[in-house]
Amino acid sequence: MRRHLISAADLSRDDALLILDTADELAKISERSIKKLPTLRGRTVVNLFFEDSTRTRISFEAAAKRLSADVINFSAKGSSVSKGESLKDTALTLEAMGADAVVIRHSASGAPHRLAGWVRGSVVNAGDGTHEHPTQALLDAFTMRRRLGSLEGRRVAIVGDVLHSRVARSNVLLLATLGAEVTLVAPPTLFPVSVGSWPCEFSYDLDAVLPKSDVVMMLRVQRERMNAAFFPTEREYSRRYGLDRDRVARMPDHALVMHPGPMNRGMEIAAEVADSPRSTIVEQVANGVTARMAVLYLLLGGAELGGEN
Amino acid sequence: MRRHLISAADLSRDDALLILDTADELAKISERSIKKLPTLRGRTVVNLFFEDSTRTRISFEAAAKRLSADVINFSAKGSSVSKGESLKDTALTLEAMGADAVVIRHSASGAPHRLAGWVRGSVVNAGDGTHEHPTQALLDAFTMRRRLGSLEGRRVAIVGDVLHSRVARSNVLLLATLGAEVTLVAPPTLFPVSVGSWPCEFSYDLDAVLPKSDVVMMLRVQRERMNAAFFPTEREYSRRYGLDRDRVARMPDHALVMHPGPMNRGMEIAAEVADSPRSTIVEQVANGVTARMAVLYLLLGGAELGGEN
Amino acid sequence: MRRHLISAADLSRDDALLILDTADELAKISERSIKKLPTLRGRTVVNLFFEDSTRTRISFEAAAKRLSADVINFSAKGSSVSKGESLKDTALTLEAMGADAVVIRHSASGAPHRLAGWVRGSVVNAGDGTHEHPTQALLDAFTMRRRLGSLEGRRVAIVGDVLHSRVARSNVLLLATLGAEVTLVAPPTLFPVSVGSWPCEFSYDLDAVLPKSDVVMMLRVQRERMNAAFFPTEREYSRRYGLDRDRVARMPDHALVMHPGPMNRGMEIAAEVADSPRSTIVEQVANGVTARMAVLYLLLGGAELGGEN
Repeated sequence: MRRHLISAADLSRDDALLILDTADELAKISERSIKKLPTLRGRTVVNLFFEDSTRTRISFEAAAKRLSADVINFSAKGSSVSKGESLKDTALTLEAMGADAVVIRHSASGAPHRLAGWVRGSVVNAGDGTHEHPTQALLDAFTMRRRLGSLEGRRVAIVGDVLHSRVARSNVLLLATLGAEVTLVAPPTLFPVSVGSWPCEFSYDLDAVLPKSDVVMMLRVQRERMNAAFFPTEREYSRRYGLDRDRVARMPDHALVMHPGPMNRGMEIAAEVADSPRSTIVEQVANGVTARMAVLYLLLGGAELGGEN
Repeated sequence: MRRHLISAADLSRDDALLILDTADELAKISERSIKKLPTLRGRTVVNLFFEDSTRTRISFEAAAKRLSADVINFSAKGSSVSKGESLKDTALTLEAMGADAVVIRHSASGAPHRLAGWVRGSVVNAGDGTHEHPTQALLDAFTMRRRLGSLEGRRVAIVGDVLHSRVARSNVLLLATLGAEVTLVAPPTLFPVSVGSWPCEFSYDLDAVLPKSDVVMMLRVQRERMNAAFFPTEREYSRRYGLDRDRVARMPDHALVMHPGPMNRGMEIAAEVADSPRSTIVEQVANGVTARMAVLYLLLGGAELGGEN
Repeated sequence: MRRHLISAADLSRDDALLILDTADELAKISERSIKKLPTLRGRTVVNLFFEDSTRTRISFEAAAKRLSADVINFSAKGSSVSKGESLKDTALTLEAMGADAVVIRHSASGAPHRLAGWVRGSVVNAGDGTHEHPTQALLDAFTMRRRLGSLEGRRVAIVGDVLHSRVARSNVLLLATLGAEVTLVAPPTLFPVSVGSWPCEFSYDLDAVLPKSDVVMMLRVQRERMNAAFFPTEREYSRRYGLDRDRVARMPDHALVMHPGPMNRGMEIAAEVADSPRSTIVEQVANGVTARMAVLYLLLGGAELGGEN
């Protein structure tokens, strides 16, 4: 595997399967009530967060700690970054302090890529602007595979504000690599211009897509964008693209409902749907820790699996 | 013992004594210079703080780390909570990430109780609104017992702003369970309406209560409330309810002075009283870590005590 | 060695050499790929930061964790400190919670000294106002010694805003102790009044000092001070005191360029100079962790070096 994880597009099919298989092994170890592995003892993982994202930060922190790595949280607020230090100098500083991996969240698309050009350690993209969020795609694929088996030929609908969603883009790229067929579903104004080059289908009509989907992945609506001219009203959005009980009834019996969280219950997803047995939302969170453990394990070249702490 | 610690009222006499006895054992181990126990290795404790409280957060963090647990700090500021995520979804997320215990501080009375209804792990109330703060009551009882022996029949005066004090309520409940006799002392406007149902006595007259008290526990004055119509002026408050040298002279020789901190020196307590040998204020802080270790140890069903890290 | 590290002036020549030699040993162990030592297992180091300084906080955190200490971060913002708790009560609280060492950063000169009067544990000054920053001086001396050998008779120029620099003061004191000859170079308005009593030379003329310097240490310009009447304009400052390629050409071939970071590239130092082979800027960061490990190791009386985690 490569040294960094910047984009889902960087992962070959073999890379992706190796990560998913490793996550499977880690999940099995965890089911044997072995909560902590000594694999990355003495290694340091820095969470370099230029945007608040407690949920993602904690997931990486838990993953690193279960592998016995030391974790240092670096929030850019109030740091030398706000005194005008460049990203490059911040990166070199963290590496010099002994960071073996830097997990970066940044509002600028491409920041993790630039970071990877400067450091010898591993860089993991934990979300850059509207660009990518590859570990989210990995945990989603891991969740689907555990529920449905191989993703080859599986049909996945990704629904909502695709325009602003790094989750959608990373999922499309990874799922294509794994042989799934993705359909993006959104109102016309919420597709990005570049979407024509993405390896997937498109639709404005959720109801038409539901009956032929193995997975329906709802995206979070960013309410703060709801006032913009190109965005439908909340009520209109919910009526046309919200997943309620009636819509779920049109899905195949085995089909899954996914959401990356945090949810707007009652908006893009009804509360009863979120809490139903076919929802994987809580599993996705648990699988997020496992998938990130697999990524850190493989990037940092940990010792063999299976030891006990 | 139960799975959660939400209210001091939930603790039977046996529960409370078990926690205090466990804390005693832990204190003895610590006195043998064994600073860290492997008991909770691989367990994860999340500090979920919706209000700032560095002091309480650090106490729980130190307690968990001395038992070798991993600690993840979650401050609700800037988190998905501020994006409108519900407490329930936050709770399910933390549990899915592997939290074995959630230590919660919240401005809303009852939030820890609701949380406990949603998760399988343990919930520890680290202060909810003006309602309860049960580990504070436990550390206070532990401190009294180490200084005075059994609490059976001991007379404890709790003095000050009872109306806004979760510390007072939790102490009254726990001390009653342990057989102590509590008298609340405050100006008439600073008793809560419900106080008539509490298992304790009441007085407006500190000077009358002092001579027959084994313990005098001063509550922190919340200065920001001092402008309210129902509150006395600072000077008036200090004159009638402040603990100065003259008042201490009226206490029995063996009687203790307690304060949960942080203190307003010169306001509810004179500096020389806070620093006197009968003050347990610094001991309370140390005992806070020990009492919280005992709670985490018992709730998480740790391995046997006595091992060395 | 003493119990605290408050000022570089407190270090005898033997103390300073012991720290540097210990740092050398720790660096050798680290080069053998032993990343973590069990030396301070069970010890707790508290980072008590009244000012934001992510860089320094992380350096101490990494140092403590590599020695297997537990680290608790205490940011004074939003803490009981902001509720008016005194520094003394904060200190006693932290000690009671089990802090073996308190690393303090404070805007008030002298705060670490006062703290040391109240606690039994070790106090490490991580920067107090414009007064001192002794571990910065230690890491700088360590960096020079690794590059140049003994500091005896070495000539060091420290250039820039000496008036506001705790780095300059601590370096002057430590370098004098170690036998180096320091020249401070600054515009007349940026020398402190007390500088006449410092054990060093002074100059307004950088170009005259460069050819006879073994080390040129550039200080960070605090841009926010640039509008003040006594300060030159940015352009004027950069022209007279900035280190660019032409000035570097006047330095001896073996001479080093140092900077404590974070840099204003293009202001006090040109980007190409910062990135040149004679720049030690990234090494200084790495050496910062090592030097701080040595300080914590010696102050906390760790077990013998050389063990493996």
